[in-house]
Amino acid sequence: MNATNFHGTSFIGYQRGAQHGKSQQAFNPATGQALPWQYFHCSDTEREKALALADAAFIPFQNSRPEQRAELLEAIANNLAAQESLIIDIATQETGLPSVRIKNELARTCFQLRHFATLIREGKCFDKRIDAADNARTPPKPELRAVKLAVGPVTVFGASNFPLAFSVAGGDTASALAAGCPVIVKAHSLHPFTAEIVAGVISATLKQQGWPEGVFSMLYGAGTETGKALVQDARIKAVGFTGSESGGRALQRYASERQHPIPVFAEMSSLNPVFLFPHALDELSDEIAGALAASICNGVGQFCTKPGLLIAPRGVALDRCLEKLNALLTAQQPAPMLSQQGAKHFATAITAVKAHANTVTHEGKVEAAYASPFLLTVDAQAFMKRPELQTEMFGPAALVIVADHETQFGDISNVLNGQLTATVWQTEHDAEAVANLLPRIQNNAGRIVFNGVPTGVEVSHAMVHGGPSPATSDARFTSVGAMAIDRFLRPVCFQNTPTHLLPEILRDK
Amino acid sequence: MNATNFHGTSFIGYQRGAQHGKSQQAFNPATGQALPWQYFHCSDTEREKALALADAAFIPFQNSRPEQRAELLEAIANNLAAQESLIIDIATQETGLPSVRIKNELARTCFQLRHFATLIREGKCFDKRIDAADNARTPPKPELRAVKLAVGPVTVFGASNFPLAFSVAGGDTASALAAGCPVIVKAHSLHPFTAEIVAGVISATLKQQGWPEGVFSMLYGAGTETGKALVQDARIKAVGFTGSESGGRALQRYASERQHPIPVFAEMSSLNPVFLFPHALDELSDEIAGALAASICNGVGQFCTKPGLLIAPRGVALDRCLEKLNALLTAQQPAPMLSQQGAKHFATAITAVKAHANTVTHEGKVEAAYASPFLLTVDAQAFMKRPELQTEMFGPAALVIVADHETQFGDISNVLNGQLTATVWQTEHDAEAVANLLPRIQNNAGRIVFNGVPTGVEVSHAMVHGGPSPATSDARFTSVGAMAIDRFLRPVCFQNTPTHLLPEILRDK
Repeated sequence: MNATNFHGTSFIGYQRGAQHGKSQQAFNPATGQALPWQYFHCSDTEREKALALADAAFIPFQNSRPEQRAELLEAIANNLAAQESLIIDIATQETGLPSVRIKNELARTCFQLRHFATLIREGKCFDKRIDAADNARTPPKPELRAVKLAVGPVTVFGASNFPLAFSVAGGDTASALAAGCPVIVKAHSLHPFTAEIVAGVISATLKQQGWPEGVFSMLYGAGTETGKALVQDARIKAVGFTGSESGGRALQRYASERQHPIPVFAEMSSLNPVFLFPHALDELSDEIAGALAASICNGVGQFCTKPGLLIAPRGVALDRCLEKLNALLTAQQPAPMLSQQGAKHFATAITAVKAHANTVTHEGKVEAAYASPFLLTVDAQAFMKRPELQTEMFGPAALVIVADHETQFGDISNVLNGQLTATVWQTEHDAEAVANLLPRIQNNAGRIVFNGVPTGVEVSHAMVHGGPSPATSDARFTSVGAMAIDRFLRPVCFQNTPTHLLPEILRDK
Repeated sequence: MNATNFHGTSFIGYQRGAQHGKSQQAFNPATGQALPWQYFHCSDTEREKALALADAAFIPFQNSRPEQRAELLEAIANNLAAQESLIIDIATQETGLPSVRIKNELARTCFQLRHFATLIREGKCFDKRIDAADNARTPPKPELRAVKLAVGPVTVFGASNFPLAFSVAGGDTASALAAGCPVIVKAHSLHPFTAEIVAGVISATLKQQGWPEGVFSMLYGAGTETGKALVQDARIKAVGFTGSESGGRALQRYASERQHPIPVFAEMSSLNPVFLFPHALDELSDEIAGALAASICNGVGQFCTKPGLLIAPRGVALDRCLEKLNALLTAQQPAPMLSQQGAKHFATAITAVKAHANTVTHEGKVEAAYASPFLLTVDAQAFMKRPELQTEMFGPAALVIVADHETQFGDISNVLNGQLTATVWQTEHDAEAVANLLPRIQNNAGRIVFNGVPTGVEVSHAMVHGGPSPATSDARFTSVGAMAIDRFLRPVCFQNTPTHLLPEILRDK
């Protein structure tokens, strides 16, 4: 495939949709120019066909051997990696993100696919359990064997800010396929042709390996139309989403309106508070400022784990740290955000926070899709009184909350909404104050980071990219790391079942 | 404690509520007479105090050592067992259930408490995970340690049909306390004084062991008032419920209306289809009829796992089996259901199903709270056209679905709502037909039973008492067995965290 033969239509199993109906172009946010390709929203008939295919593919795919699915995931990873130069070419144009970022994100995407391949080969995620029969008991105790099985066809929504790692072949798709769930992706409108390349790779790999065609489809369309129809269709059994709080809440509402509601895992909104304890501020001021400046500006601030709240006690140590941070932010060139609309949302959020924040510590700028960083400041009392100050500024910006003393951190953390992460900068001399705060923040965030930054979410066994509402829709799950597969598995128990009728994984070897 | 000193007021931590406000009496459904004790709905102030205490108790309870909580659960079990004669005396009067049932249910309740004690001592349920740091990597890989922690205070709704095992000290409470969640129970109005005895035991045990008083409260009040207020309070982080579909759906709606929705695990409604394959019908006719008659009538049919749909191919084998079943049902004496209102609901459901079922195979009777069993029959075509025939008849009744041939079982199972269980009676000669059906029913039920009955839910590692909607609100969980604790735990990841600040369970030994 190359950029000259984009088709711009949905992937309906192994077929492509028609080039008619509503069409759209993608834009290069760095130039503001439309890109020279058109894509077409799927028709109702195409969506229906994708759903019917997913439904038909479910039972064979669910009951395929994990080893086969592992080989599928690895082949997708290999075939994606082989398209690196085309993906970089198109994704950089669609997102304005630099080549190195796309290159790294592609590597992460391939790593995720391989990670889930390893996990399902190893098999612990299927949580096999066997209770032996006991015929001597009154009443006799039956033999029980349980295993976690795929929940059914899953709808995945591509994320604006990760054209690869949280989109067509991203973590949601990888974990759903690993579980044994067919996937219908709703492509994101900000990177439709990156989506076409990736969907083409998945589709070709499936076909080559001889899988039922409904294992994967990818639809173009609006979230409120195609997306809503997918979430409300009885054949879809779970939803994965990464995006805005309003988007995630809409999907939850759609799902709850069904005759039989289904779980929606929505990763939505997080301010990622950073608590700066006094001894750390004293001793690590430069390191903190450097780490935060890089983390706030990374990806032009468009990460769900961007540190958006810096909480510190008033004093010269904080002043020195902010001075340094200020200088680093000033050195940042304006950079293109993912879209002009995103930049506009960012500017609106900045205005909303400014209305209640005392001081603009660093004045940034938003022009067309370009943004340079903002740093706003408010005192702790005002922050605790104003829920508006918890507006997510999705871009290169943070709000400094100046406390009278670190003993106020607990009260501040008590008013915070649920978070993906909370970060603590401390030295051993802060130990007691940190120990007092920790039990509060561990109940309000999925991951606690020490002396580091929350951006950079490892794909590993122990990762939790989750947290209480509104960070996600269900704090009991994660969308990154090994446990992400749990979203798409459910336990089934087999009682006194003849061996040949058990799922293969439950049979005695 | 004895029956002469019932107080009839809520348990607000270690305090008791006031004897004023709306009062109610309980009834003995077997006699239709009011019992001689009054209980009082809690006031808003009392509810608020219980919530504040639970909130205050959460962090210390969450961070208590599993060993301590295991000792708590075992002491509650021992102290409950010591009240056996009083519990049997009062619970039989409140529920009309026979002594032997209450005795067994108390034993089950104590077993559940001890089972969770064993589980948290062993610790696997906390799913500890450690990813080592790798400083040689670019960028350096952080150390990640994850563990599952209690979600927060939990509201548990007592179930009408299990005055002990799914009520004040039932599986929801046991698993929530095991997880480290304070519990506020909303007592069920059908067994308020059994509830008072059990709450008294829990409260006294907690106090004796020196736990913060908010670890447990029990409130009397209406589901639409006290229950709703609890579910919608920001301090409550999860809900456990066993009861009707309308009740469970109301709780889900309450929870979704919160600013920050919380998970509701509602175990609601199940018809528990039983598929009778031809060779089994031929060879095991008497055994099937005997097992089904006992299972349908057990607990006067008021079990969520009562077999409510019997699906079989037309023919002499089925006729013979039904004749035998009919005779066994005829031999059943009318028995008191849990309440007159419950009996009325049962009669209404029977009428609704009769309106579309061709034949009354066995005519039962409902009079005051007493019911004798019903067996209705419909042909498969009619069943598949009429969703009304999936009305749950919560009492001693089943609907026989007569198929033309066992190859129709797949189509029938495709129209069925989600179920807690599905049962298969088969012999080796039915193997192929069973293998064809199995993939469908495993996706529509939490437990598949072979040549047995679905009633009798083992408390064990591999048990799944769950299933797709409307059987439960989330098929990824179970309310019975070891995995029930997962409902009340969430993973938290600690990144580069100094050892002394880690939860004890995550520290290197």
